[in-house]
Amino acid sequence: MSEVDRGSAPPMGIGDLDAPLAPLSVVGRLDRLRKQFDEAGPDGRAVDALLVTTPANVRWLTGFSGSAGRLLVTTGRAWLTTDGRYRTQAAEQLDAAGVADVIEVVVGNARTQREAVVTGAVSVGAHRIGLEADRVTWADARDWERAFERGQLEPTRGVVEALRAVKDAGEVARMERAAAIADAALSDLLPRLSELAGGGGDLTESVFAADLDHAMRRRGAEESAFETIVASGENSAKPHARPGPRPIRRGDPVVIDFGATYDGYRSDMTRTVFVGEPSDGELADVWAVVFESQRAGVDAVAPGVSAAAVDETCRGRIAEAGWADRFEHGTGHGVGLDIHEAPAVGPGSTAILQVGTVVTVEPGVYLPGRGGVRIEDTLVVTEHGSRPFTRFPKEVAV
Amino acid sequence: MSEVDRGSAPPMGIGDLDAPLAPLSVVGRLDRLRKQFDEAGPDGRAVDALLVTTPANVRWLTGFSGSAGRLLVTTGRAWLTTDGRYRTQAAEQLDAAGVADVIEVVVGNARTQREAVVTGAVSVGAHRIGLEADRVTWADARDWERAFERGQLEPTRGVVEALRAVKDAGEVARMERAAAIADAALSDLLPRLSELAGGGGDLTESVFAADLDHAMRRRGAEESAFETIVASGENSAKPHARPGPRPIRRGDPVVIDFGATYDGYRSDMTRTVFVGEPSDGELADVWAVVFESQRAGVDAVAPGVSAAAVDETCRGRIAEAGWADRFEHGTGHGVGLDIHEAPAVGPGSTAILQVGTVVTVEPGVYLPGRGGVRIEDTLVVTEHGSRPFTRFPKEVAV
Repeated sequence: MSEVDRGSAPPMGIGDLDAPLAPLSVVGRLDRLRKQFDEAGPDGRAVDALLVTTPANVRWLTGFSGSAGRLLVTTGRAWLTTDGRYRTQAAEQLDAAGVADVIEVVVGNARTQREAVVTGAVSVGAHRIGLEADRVTWADARDWERAFERGQLEPTRGVVEALRAVKDAGEVARMERAAAIADAALSDLLPRLSELAGGGGDLTESVFAADLDHAMRRRGAEESAFETIVASGENSAKPHARPGPRPIRRGDPVVIDFGATYDGYRSDMTRTVFVGEPSDGELADVWAVVFESQRAGVDAVAPGVSAAAVDETCRGRIAEAGWADRFEHGTGHGVGLDIHEAPAVGPGSTAILQVGTVVTVEPGVYLPGRGGVRIEDTLVVTEHGSRPFTRFPKEVAV
Repeated sequence: MSEVDRGSAPPMGIGDLDAPLAPLSVVGRLDRLRKQFDEAGPDGRAVDALLVTTPANVRWLTGFSGSAGRLLVTTGRAWLTTDGRYRTQAAEQLDAAGVADVIEVVVGNARTQREAVVTGAVSVGAHRIGLEADRVTWADARDWERAFERGQLEPTRGVVEALRAVKDAGEVARMERAAAIADAALSDLLPRLSELAGGGGDLTESVFAADLDHAMRRRGAEESAFETIVASGENSAKPHARPGPRPIRRGDPVVIDFGATYDGYRSDMTRTVFVGEPSDGELADVWAVVFESQRAGVDAVAPGVSAAAVDETCRGRIAEAGWADRFEHGTGHGVGLDIHEAPAVGPGSTAILQVGTVVTVEPGVYLPGRGGVRIEDTLVVTEHGSRPFTRFPKEVAV
């Protein structure tokens, strides 16, 4: 069930952007990971330890947000290794997360850290050590193979990522805050498009994107969630357009796809607005179809529903209008510490949505050389449907 | 020889930020790479093809700037594979770079691209295929090993990176433009610190960083070159501090370490300024020592000089003042398409500077709990010494 609607209230009354947030529930995550050890390896083979090197996974399991951390998790113990730059930060963040008593911190250079990991694994008799194969480089894997001379390395994929797909209250609160910051920033900027619609001012895609990013930072975002897309006129027909020097003109569609980062968590929203009366009438029809498709997709989101079914719902509405071959990307993706994470929402998705899963719903239709429309919200699955984080109204024109 | 000095002219007259730049010399780079094949593998073993997957390396060799490109270079041919999003862009950028006639483009999904690479290698009889071991993931390396069932994969390290360390005129022009944008942006912002020194206004590290990043974007930067550091007061004692909510106060040292990106090329500059009279007198002494150390380091940069000697020069001046143990990082690094690239400038560096090498010189002294000073320029090695890209004056206080 969606609270987003064309007629919903303006986004500014959604709460204090400085209010305290629910804490993150880091305690317990290590034990949830350990329960995956029996099937974490290739072909469902067991591991008896996992070496976590993906920064977002390290952060999720420990609270440590530094760029250089390795976490060895065995069935009974855990070690976080990092370098001297992060000595104080690692201690403080583990303490704040409530896991300082269950994770031993080792600070040293690359060699010292590697030795600490091997010694830790050997000390608990771990022989089959999982290594995150989608993150670790080939050079590092070869170094680890030499270091674990008496162990067996197992390439693991998506083990921690699968746990991260379901968010707790603290994570949801951070994503809502990020989305509220983005909503407020777009409110700051939209009058500039209205001015263009009225025949005044001038504004390029690049400047609009720079000013939108700045508005998010000024309202408390650590950074943009990803490289902001502002694609106007014919550029809006390219789903991955980068903002350029093109001046935004009256009658243009403008695809604005952006998000904020707050305490590491990201938001993701797309709005497509016309600058006054659309100069290409068919694109207004496209807008209406994408709007209905996106609303149907949001309404389909509920616990127990497959991600593929949400995709099918969105795709069906667009196919009915005859534009099936103009919707060339997936319907959505998970969001959290990463802008793209599990689960994927597309034709081949096997994921079943659960309470706490966060996904985007973002169908789009693109007419090459003319223009395109994409509309996107980020939602959390709730007991009875979903709740959107992104609440900015969907208006066809400014 | 340095053109930077305490008394140099203000940075604003350094040229039109929109003027056309010298073209990049992409043609010929593939052949320079092929000359490395004889010793590109581990222990100096030869390869007869190299699969380039590092985006900056792909860009440097082809002109293609998309995020998803793989380049197979054999002794006589080359193939660039990418996905459908980049079909038009790849064709346009290879054409603009003048290499469209020597690189075959293959567009497809992951499987198609992999097959094209294998087929290409087989078609020219390549058996020993180099793979960039510091970039390719373990999972991908395993996939490539299966795909090249009749070939031998060799892990290569730093082969293209070594070529990239020497910049051509087009690259130098882009880095000078990036640096000029950064200089101009800091000029825009510095009055805010002067206002604080005069007792007016208020400004946090976060807001200063957000506004500086925005000023660079507004002046034509694609993005910041890296996450801008604005570290004030006691925070300036941390070399890798992130900007936070701390208000910048009168008497504070403020370390500002930032850069712009222009046409993919990055700049890197640090200035440390006091907001009025330093509240900690010893930090003013630190400033003078770091200033002299940095100037000596810049003066030492010349062709034929070892990077280690530049480091030793900077370190020696700081040691003479008794702060050897307070200068805990290397003196500098190469800059280009990446913010950190070859050569390193530190105690163990083996690189010899050549005409066209671009390096930073950035000594610093940090007194824990009190404050720190770092001063940094980016320079290109010239026939008779060096020329700085970053020209903002070095003033002890605003």
